[in-house]
Amino acid sequence: MRLPLRSCRIFRRFIPQKQTADAQRRGLSGAGMRLVQFRGSGDRDGVRVGVEQGEGLGVVDLKAFDPSMPSTVRELLQLGDRGLECAQRALASGQFVVDRANVQLLPPILTPEKVVCVGMNYRDHCLEQNAPIPNEPIIFSKFPSAITGPYDDIVLPPESQEVDWEVELAFVIGRRGKNIQEEDALSHVAGFTVANDVSARDWQFRRNGKQWLLSKTFDSFCPLGPALVTADAVKDPHNLGIRCLVNGDTVQSSNTAQMIFKTAALIAWVSKFVTLTPGDVFLTGTPPGVGVFRNPPVFLKKGDVVECQIEQLGSIINKVI
Amino acid sequence: MRLPLRSCRIFRRFIPQKQTADAQRRGLSGAGMRLVQFRGSGDRDGVRVGVEQGEGLGVVDLKAFDPSMPSTVRELLQLGDRGLECAQRALASGQFVVDRANVQLLPPILTPEKVVCVGMNYRDHCLEQNAPIPNEPIIFSKFPSAITGPYDDIVLPPESQEVDWEVELAFVIGRRGKNIQEEDALSHVAGFTVANDVSARDWQFRRNGKQWLLSKTFDSFCPLGPALVTADAVKDPHNLGIRCLVNGDTVQSSNTAQMIFKTAALIAWVSKFVTLTPGDVFLTGTPPGVGVFRNPPVFLKKGDVVECQIEQLGSIINKVI
Repeated sequence: MRLPLRSCRIFRRFIPQKQTADAQRRGLSGAGMRLVQFRGSGDRDGVRVGVEQGEGLGVVDLKAFDPSMPSTVRELLQLGDRGLECAQRALASGQFVVDRANVQLLPPILTPEKVVCVGMNYRDHCLEQNAPIPNEPIIFSKFPSAITGPYDDIVLPPESQEVDWEVELAFVIGRRGKNIQEEDALSHVAGFTVANDVSARDWQFRRNGKQWLLSKTFDSFCPLGPALVTADAVKDPHNLGIRCLVNGDTVQSSNTAQMIFKTAALIAWVSKFVTLTPGDVFLTGTPPGVGVFRNPPVFLKKGDVVECQIEQLGSIINKVI
Repeated sequence: MRLPLRSCRIFRRFIPQKQTADAQRRGLSGAGMRLVQFRGSGDRDGVRVGVEQGEGLGVVDLKAFDPSMPSTVRELLQLGDRGLECAQRALASGQFVVDRANVQLLPPILTPEKVVCVGMNYRDHCLEQNAPIPNEPIIFSKFPSAITGPYDDIVLPPESQEVDWEVELAFVIGRRGKNIQEEDALSHVAGFTVANDVSARDWQFRRNGKQWLLSKTFDSFCPLGPALVTADAVKDPHNLGIRCLVNGDTVQSSNTAQMIFKTAALIAWVSKFVTLTPGDVFLTGTPPGVGVFRNPPVFLKKGDVVECQIEQLGSIINKVI
C-alpha cells in the first residue's frame, strides 16, 4: 500500500501552511534535510539514500550525485559530517531528482544495531491509566526486524487478538558515544522521524513473564518514516503536535511537550548502560488514547488504516492486513 | 586479558581426552568446523574469519585462502553452503595457518541483528528459586553492543552493585526463516558456542519497571566464544556438561539435558514472532548456581575471573574489572 499523496494532504491539513513553507525553506536553503531511503521503480532490490526536496516532493538520489556515497542512511551517518555535507550539496544541486511517482519509500533506517523504546513517557498517558509518573525512564526494545516502511502494511499475527497503536516521536543517533552528558546529548542526534510502536497487549500484559519484548517485536510492528528530518530542521522537537488516526478518526492527540524524559535525558540515561552508535533508533513513548485503555477496549482489525502524524515531520500510513 | 592456553588446559581437564580427540577428528576430517573471528598480531582493526585446526590450535585464515570470502562470520553464514564449503576447503588445505600466539580471538559473531535470550529454561534452575517450570519460553534480549570476546574483560558498571554470572549454551542461526516448524528447526542452526549472560540483579529485579533489558545489556555483559562450533560437529547439544567457575571454584555445574525448551522448540517459538536471519544469536538459559540465589548472595567484584565451560565447545574466561 503506497499513499504518499494522501499522507501529504493530511499532514498539510494538520499543520499550518506557513509552518510547512518555513520548514521547506529551511530544508532547501539551510542545513536541514529530509533524508529518506527508497527504491526506484526500475530497481529489483537496491536500497538508495535520497534527500527530499520537500515533504512529498521529488527525491534527490545521493549515489547518482556522488557514486562514492553509501546506499543506506545508517552508513551515511557513519561518515559523520562528510556524509551530511555531501547530501546537502546533492540537495542544492537540484539534479538527479527522482520523480515522486517513481519512488517507493522505505523506512529511513533499516537494520540499526538497536531499537530503544521508552515506556510510560507522557504525563497524560500516565494519567490515563492511573499510573504514577516514573522517576526513571523505563527502557525496553524491539528487534530491528520489526521495522517496516512508512506506507507498508501492519500484519496482524494469528498469535495475538489485541494489537494496538502507539504514535511516537522517534530520533536517530548520528554520533557514537558512551556516558554522554545531558548537555552534550543533542549533538549525538542525527534527526527525528515518526514511529508507530505497534503492541500486542495480550502478550504485553499477560504472557512471556510480563517481559514486553515479544509483544512489541512481531514483524511489521515498527512502521517508521516517512523521512529522517535532520535535527537542525526541527525548531523544537519537544513542542510538536502528535496524533494518531484510525480509519480517519483521531484516537491520539497530544504534544511532545508532554514527554517526561526528553531527547537529551534519554540519551544520557541509555548511554550509561550501552554505547550508542550511528543509526540507533529511539522510540520515545506514546501519548494517551491507545486502544487497550478505552472502555470497552478497541483493537486493530484487518482493513483498518492507521495514520501517525507529527508536526514538521510528516505522516506514516499503514494498512492492517 | 588473553588466556587461550589456560582455557585449553581447563577444558581438557573437564572433558575426557578421548572425546576431545573424537571432536578434533570430526573437525578435521568431516564437515564439522570451529569457526572463529580473529585479529592478527599485525592488524590494527581488521576482523578476519578463521577456522581452528582444533581447539586452541592454529587458525586457518579464510580470506588468505580465498580473497573472495567475507571478513565476518555473519557474512559467511549469509553465503549459505557456499561459504561453509569454502571454509571446509580452507581447513583441509592445511595452509594459511596463523600461529595461535599471533591470534587475538574476537567473539565468533559481532553485530548480529538479534541477541535472543531465554529465561528460566533449566529445570534445576527453577527448583533453585522455587519457581514453577514455565509452560512457554520466556524471551528477552540484549543489544548486540553487549557482546564481547571470549577472553575480554567484563566491565563492572558503577550503576550496579549486584553483577552476577550465568553460563549458557548459545546457538547461532545459519538460515533465514519465519514460522519455522520444530521438525525443520535444526536445519536453521549454524552452530553452537558458549555465552555468559552477565546480569545486574539490582536492575533486573528492582529497577526499570522490572523489564530485564537494561540489567542484561550493559556493555561487555555478553562474553561469547571461543568458536562457533558447527552443528554437525556437536553430537548432541542437549547432552553437554555445562559449568561456570569463579576464581577456580565451580559455582554452576549441570548438563544441557536439563533445558526445558530445547534448540528446535526455541527456534519454532521465536520464529512465530520474528523472522530469523543468519547470525542471530540465541542464549538458551542458565543452570542453577548463580550468585543472587546463594545464601548470602554473592556478586562479582573487581579482579574476579569467570570461566564458562561447555563440553565439546570450549571455555571462555573473562576477568572482571
